[in-house]
Amino acid sequence: MRSAYHEQLDQFDDGLVRMTTLVNAAMIRATNALLDADLELAESVIAGDDQIDALAHDLEDEALQLVALQAPVATDLRVLLSGLRISASLERMGDLAVHVAKAARLRYPATAVPSELRQVIIDMGEVAERIVQRTGEVLADRDATKAAALAIIDDEMDSLHRQLFNAVLSDDWSHGVEAAIDVTLVSRYYERFADHAVTIGKRVVHIVTGEPYSTAGIE
Amino acid sequence: MRSAYHEQLDQFDDGLVRMTTLVNAAMIRATNALLDADLELAESVIAGDDQIDALAHDLEDEALQLVALQAPVATDLRVLLSGLRISASLERMGDLAVHVAKAARLRYPATAVPSELRQVIIDMGEVAERIVQRTGEVLADRDATKAAALAIIDDEMDSLHRQLFNAVLSDDWSHGVEAAIDVTLVSRYYERFADHAVTIGKRVVHIVTGEPYSTAGIE
Repeated sequence: MRSAYHEQLDQFDDGLVRMTTLVNAAMIRATNALLDADLELAESVIAGDDQIDALAHDLEDEALQLVALQAPVATDLRVLLSGLRISASLERMGDLAVHVAKAARLRYPATAVPSELRQVIIDMGEVAERIVQRTGEVLADRDATKAAALAIIDDEMDSLHRQLFNAVLSDDWSHGVEAAIDVTLVSRYYERFADHAVTIGKRVVHIVTGEPYSTAGIE
Repeated sequence: MRSAYHEQLDQFDDGLVRMTTLVNAAMIRATNALLDADLELAESVIAGDDQIDALAHDLEDEALQLVALQAPVATDLRVLLSGLRISASLERMGDLAVHVAKAARLRYPATAVPSELRQVIIDMGEVAERIVQRTGEVLADRDATKAAALAIIDDEMDSLHRQLFNAVLSDDWSHGVEAAIDVTLVSRYYERFADHAVTIGKRVVHIVTGEPYSTAGIE
């Protein structure tokens, strides 16, 4: 009974890691759809979000059943309750990939990204890929040190966000208001994507150490 | 013992309702700070967010202790697990009020809102106030019908968001890129604020009916 129960706990963890893989794939495809104005790819990201939502929903049910049937304590309980919030963050990261894909769809057949900002978006996509990959490792290994280090990758994203802002607000900006809003919102989606990874990291630190994380900036 | 336990459950609910009051006050003040370019008011919203975060944190600890000590089942368990996510949504709504306040601070002593958009922002503030007030009632009464009706108020917010977008993208827009981005981001903060209220409504429906809500759009 207990061993079946611990199997269920491991399955729950695996589910969270699987979500990071789906979210990562979604954001990679959304970034490519945005850069290449690839409508089909954008649509596939938008349609694929149901799979991420369904997995989050299944994990929520699993956690609820485990808590109800097993009344776990200490670390196990923290894993399940924090896991509920981690799955919510991952689900939201999937939604942000959808927002990027919708930005691509909105401007199709044109691209929403002016050529001089192409590299910044490429870099943001790369940072997004790295931070969610690392988040998956953090969840798999329950590594509090790695978890705390997610904030360093997030700093890279914030600096890219500022870089894009400065470009849009510079006197050289020649693409008008609509393009400025497009890229600013897209940039914000990547920034929030990385913020959620940092939040997940804080929750893993909480799981491992049992210390209450500061809720400041937990979103 | 059980009665002490049910007292704790009620206190948990009261805590969520109290969060809606704090979040409502924060967004009202943030809206006024934005409209009147009131730096002091903006700073007070930004500083006051710690109180909301702390309350969310306390509720999380309460829920964890209740689940650990009492192993609640059925509705009680749904209340606590859903409550964890509701408090996370309310905490995020507080963050969005801070974002509005920071937009006001960023442009001080100027105002971030051009005169012709003033009324739209006033209306968004009014809708935000109404939807979070209603959310507090939904949480206090566990009223699934009222909960579902939050989506109707959210529609008002979405239409204001579109209205603002159209103004910014119209040929008459004379305030440049920076002002366009300012008001677009601010408008998005109000829109997300209302979205979170709808999400909370879905969770209350789940608490009351026990039916799994669709996780689609749960953020």
